[in-house]
Amino acid sequence: MTVLILTSDQDVTADMAVVELNARGIPVLRLDPAELPGGVDLSGEYAHGDFEGHLSVGGRVVSMAGLRSIWVRRPGVPAAHADAASAWLTEEASQALYGMLRCTGARWMNHPDAARQARHKPWQLWLARECGLPVPATLITTFPRVARAFAERYPDLVVKPVSGAHPGDGTLAVPTTRVRPGEDYRAVAHGPTLLQRRVRKRADIRLTCVGEQLFAARAASGAPGADAPDTAGVGGVGGVGGVVDVRFDPDAGPWRPVDVPRRVADAVHGYLTRAGLAYGAFDFAEDADGIWWFLECNQSGQFGFVEIETGQPIGRAVAEWLAGEPLGPAGPPDADACRADPTHP
Amino acid sequence: MTVLILTSDQDVTADMAVVELNARGIPVLRLDPAELPGGVDLSGEYAHGDFEGHLSVGGRVVSMAGLRSIWVRRPGVPAAHADAASAWLTEEASQALYGMLRCTGARWMNHPDAARQARHKPWQLWLARECGLPVPATLITTFPRVARAFAERYPDLVVKPVSGAHPGDGTLAVPTTRVRPGEDYRAVAHGPTLLQRRVRKRADIRLTCVGEQLFAARAASGAPGADAPDTAGVGGVGGVGGVVDVRFDPDAGPWRPVDVPRRVADAVHGYLTRAGLAYGAFDFAEDADGIWWFLECNQSGQFGFVEIETGQPIGRAVAEWLAGEPLGPAGPPDADACRADPTHP
Repeated sequence: MTVLILTSDQDVTADMAVVELNARGIPVLRLDPAELPGGVDLSGEYAHGDFEGHLSVGGRVVSMAGLRSIWVRRPGVPAAHADAASAWLTEEASQALYGMLRCTGARWMNHPDAARQARHKPWQLWLARECGLPVPATLITTFPRVARAFAERYPDLVVKPVSGAHPGDGTLAVPTTRVRPGEDYRAVAHGPTLLQRRVRKRADIRLTCVGEQLFAARAASGAPGADAPDTAGVGGVGGVGGVVDVRFDPDAGPWRPVDVPRRVADAVHGYLTRAGLAYGAFDFAEDADGIWWFLECNQSGQFGFVEIETGQPIGRAVAEWLAGEPLGPAGPPDADACRADPTHP
Repeated sequence: MTVLILTSDQDVTADMAVVELNARGIPVLRLDPAELPGGVDLSGEYAHGDFEGHLSVGGRVVSMAGLRSIWVRRPGVPAAHADAASAWLTEEASQALYGMLRCTGARWMNHPDAARQARHKPWQLWLARECGLPVPATLITTFPRVARAFAERYPDLVVKPVSGAHPGDGTLAVPTTRVRPGEDYRAVAHGPTLLQRRVRKRADIRLTCVGEQLFAARAASGAPGADAPDTAGVGGVGGVGGVVDVRFDPDAGPWRPVDVPRRVADAVHGYLTRAGLAYGAFDFAEDADGIWWFLECNQSGQFGFVEIETGQPIGRAVAEWLAGEPLGPAGPPDADACRADPTHP
């Protein structure tokens, strides 16, 4: 039974799990949907009451019935690298590939439908509350007067994208920033704006969940001054004050492993179950009382930087989940392991 | 409790259900996500352990907690009509609107995740078989030699889009067409191609399912000559012979109501349950033995033309499902009904 990994060639984080699988002789097929058609081929036949599907990369052919799990890491857009790339070809290739993979009995990390639902920030906030996680008071609105009334009740606010787009996503780079006192909220009418009570945090928490396994890391906040109001904003929708985003904070401490409070662990397991997710990276802000405030859950959040800084074996946990079994110690490389992934030996 | 309908202004099919709801005083809010922001406003607040959301169109405000059902008919792309339309604003508006609606307890026709899954043709074919519907032998492939071998086993083939895009979808217009004998399949390598054994049909069947209610309509096939091989194709991927698509057949008979065989009814109910769909429009080809061969299930298929030709009360069934209750006879318009949808009185 083979593990299928859908990701780009440049994805070094995937390598952290592939190494673990290869070392134990578990077959891996790694492919980028962007290479279909061209570098990747597929075929599926419905006849005599059966469905039989096959995938092929670099001359190696794998039966879809032989897939034990599918890891949707950082797949490219289907057909993006094709000679005759077009929106039409992308649609055809996407439906063919994902349509067939949906017919297999393989376990998904994460299933495309669960992944899509999980990206909705308003739904994340609702589900987190439903599962018992503390959520800072939040407003998403296109009504300027509602935004003003919210700011009167919660004078210390941050603004962030509704879609939760990660700053790494190129053109969608909008870090979480503080709102100036007395902000003019008229521009809210031009687009849904997410305002959230700012948590006066003493640390950021990244809680990476892989099936039942939890890995929490903590980064103490930067210099005390970083928490003082910064009203030298640049304006714009919602007003922009100081950046409070740990991803942009040069003074944040290094990531260190930390225990997960039992209550949080239970809530997070509940969240992932209800969301149908096998993997999720939760961001919390830890306040002065030690409360972990839910900020978001990224169903495809990176774990490489956490593993490197903390030594937590997250890649190995991913490999175990994909294998569907605890992994024994790595043996010497054998012929199987070498064959496991010809495109990434 | 209000029925929310997401669709464009031009959607006259939606009117067929709205009329039924209005006549019985069931409040309806109709809006096009393309008008958010601008013509449509929204607001959602998470505070004190609760989520409270509101939608506003034309000065009317509706609580999201008061939504009994959501009909995703033909919604526009969020923010498409905004003054500052952009991919970024579309993403923000989409996540805000659908993210909040996912937090409500409303019933969906159809839920966006179920709808998305249901569009995958390879998955449709698989699920139809799983549920016991006859499916013509089908191949989806990028391997020319596999296509050739399939054509040797099934010499009479049609080719159709993998993505099941409807010819009405503008640029994606590709009708189902016959494959010429001796076709050169080399072009299959340039894009996944769907080949299917042609059913020698004597009629087309459109089975429209609304919750538990089934409405089947039958259109006898055109002149006998239409079924004779037509090899004067224009070439291209998979080869194009004569068009066998009922939507393009000027000789097809009118749609007439027909009974649903018990076996088919059971299979179709199973299909919709497993797919999580409240609405589906199935297309079958009826062969000389009276067997209904599954061709596809369109989760957003039109029903207006069937209702008009057959008199089957499909719009009323949709209204009943959305209302969550059987509808009594329409009373005289009252004040409530007049208020029900100020944008579509």
